[in-house]
Amino acid sequence: MKTKLTELLGIEHPVIQGGMQWVGKAELASAVSEAGGLGILTALTQPSPGDLVKEIRRMRAMTRKPFGVNLTLLPTLKPVPYGDYVDVMISEKIKIVETAGRSPEEFMPRLLEAGIKVIHKCTSVRHALKAQKIGCAAASVDGFECAGHPGEDDIPGLVLLPLAVDALSIPVIASGGFGDGRGLAAALCLGAEGINMGTRFLATREAPIHENVKKALVDADERQSALILRTLKNTARIYKNSVAKDILAMESRGNITIEELSPLVSGARGRTVYENGDIEAGVWSAGMVAGLIRDIPSVRDLITRIVKDAETIIKGRLHTMIS
Amino acid sequence: MKTKLTELLGIEHPVIQGGMQWVGKAELASAVSEAGGLGILTALTQPSPGDLVKEIRRMRAMTRKPFGVNLTLLPTLKPVPYGDYVDVMISEKIKIVETAGRSPEEFMPRLLEAGIKVIHKCTSVRHALKAQKIGCAAASVDGFECAGHPGEDDIPGLVLLPLAVDALSIPVIASGGFGDGRGLAAALCLGAEGINMGTRFLATREAPIHENVKKALVDADERQSALILRTLKNTARIYKNSVAKDILAMESRGNITIEELSPLVSGARGRTVYENGDIEAGVWSAGMVAGLIRDIPSVRDLITRIVKDAETIIKGRLHTMIS
Repeated sequence: MKTKLTELLGIEHPVIQGGMQWVGKAELASAVSEAGGLGILTALTQPSPGDLVKEIRRMRAMTRKPFGVNLTLLPTLKPVPYGDYVDVMISEKIKIVETAGRSPEEFMPRLLEAGIKVIHKCTSVRHALKAQKIGCAAASVDGFECAGHPGEDDIPGLVLLPLAVDALSIPVIASGGFGDGRGLAAALCLGAEGINMGTRFLATREAPIHENVKKALVDADERQSALILRTLKNTARIYKNSVAKDILAMESRGNITIEELSPLVSGARGRTVYENGDIEAGVWSAGMVAGLIRDIPSVRDLITRIVKDAETIIKGRLHTMIS
Repeated sequence: MKTKLTELLGIEHPVIQGGMQWVGKAELASAVSEAGGLGILTALTQPSPGDLVKEIRRMRAMTRKPFGVNLTLLPTLKPVPYGDYVDVMISEKIKIVETAGRSPEEFMPRLLEAGIKVIHKCTSVRHALKAQKIGCAAASVDGFECAGHPGEDDIPGLVLLPLAVDALSIPVIASGGFGDGRGLAAALCLGAEGINMGTRFLATREAPIHENVKKALVDADERQSALILRTLKNTARIYKNSVAKDILAMESRGNITIEELSPLVSGARGRTVYENGDIEAGVWSAGMVAGLIRDIPSVRDLITRIVKDAETIIKGRLHTMIS
């Protein structure tokens, strides 16, 4: 498939593996890039900028195809040396950076000067317009369906994507709720130039996480996610386990603070889920698309199937309907 | 366009005008049917079954093309003689009935015996499966985006539609968030056989409502809707006016009862909005798709444009991407 996104990034298929904390390592990202999509390493999954250097080099030993590095700018209790991670991206000659969370404005002059294409992940049209204004090459537009941080507007992709496409001149990447060829074809109809998938890539053979998490996604239906931290206006969509239910109960009592919640939402506990496979051990992201996940294929088989199914829908089903 | 839905209903375009209280009158419904879609009269918009007889006859004087009658089965403070409305549908030889709200099971034997095709509007896969089991000919699957009653699961169409298509053997109609050719093409990609639109048809020349309401939809962005009555597990998506904000404030205080809310949500006040054009006078339904509404065309121009745009996307944009 050939779209503005495949042209922009020099990739074969319009499929991006979005940055995922604890998961966006070279094993998964290289498999995605090797299969013709865009794999993305997650900078903050590495404990230090020096470790990111090592991970980028490990990645380059596994693939010569294009890949990106994600930098997620979210409120944290402990300060994160974002600038040092950006230094690494530039010195390691990274070509594509995905930013998420708050605006990457402060880092844009340096990223642009280094010739880096920046894809910013947004959950609203106004943030996507801001991203375009500061020089981003594409906007990854995340609908209400998405895992992680959907924002506070609750606008699903069916409405948010065409609105973003109408408002922007840079390519729009559809994110949130995508996991199969039907979704890819639908995204292209809505005006997007490709899709970004997170949750769907968790349930692949190469995802460097415990098998129990993958099985939990196969078993989950579309109602197995929960929105937490809404009361703090920092909403996150996570897998609805006992920790999620505890947090929701605390939030429904009102006046909850991040200090009270932090033991429950701690990244260390989320990491334990992925490493040890106890899906009740902490908070971990899972989008509504889990309801559509029914197997744990290799990354190559998954991407090939998604693209082939989308093409079959376009050439077969749709063509028959209009002729 | 030719889909299982156009074949099932004998219509030219896979576009249905969903039943809307106070709006689903012969003026709008006949315009939709005449333009090649399926217009739907709303039974309960008529004060009595006898008035529905008159409205059906008025409709038949305005179009000879297929049309349907909607029967919405929702909790009401005053009992509604549903059975008498069903009697009218049968005696007037209606061919297509759209049901919404609770399961139409009690009326199905008589509707089926009369050869009526029943389309049930559902907001979940389990309700759609139930509809199929009791003999419905199609399921209109309403995503989280929709105006009116989205249910309590909050699953948008991007995820809900393919899930419903996988689970059902009867045709699925995509509802909620649809308003243009991009949406129609996307719905077909997701496996639906057509779209149902409510809010988009409000902003047409023929909609028998005050011009102010139409203009309010043109002016609205995608964030101009609110979900009320969630605390009563009877969630409704409405236009976010001052009444909506008052209701949300009352609900956030907790322990609100339907008796306290009923003056605010009264149908009479909603009717006043449509008739007198005071958009702050009461509760009225508007879906997120309002953000995509930018004009007030005739019904024929709207349907023609939607179908043409969808065909252009399929033949042009998508075809170029895969070849």
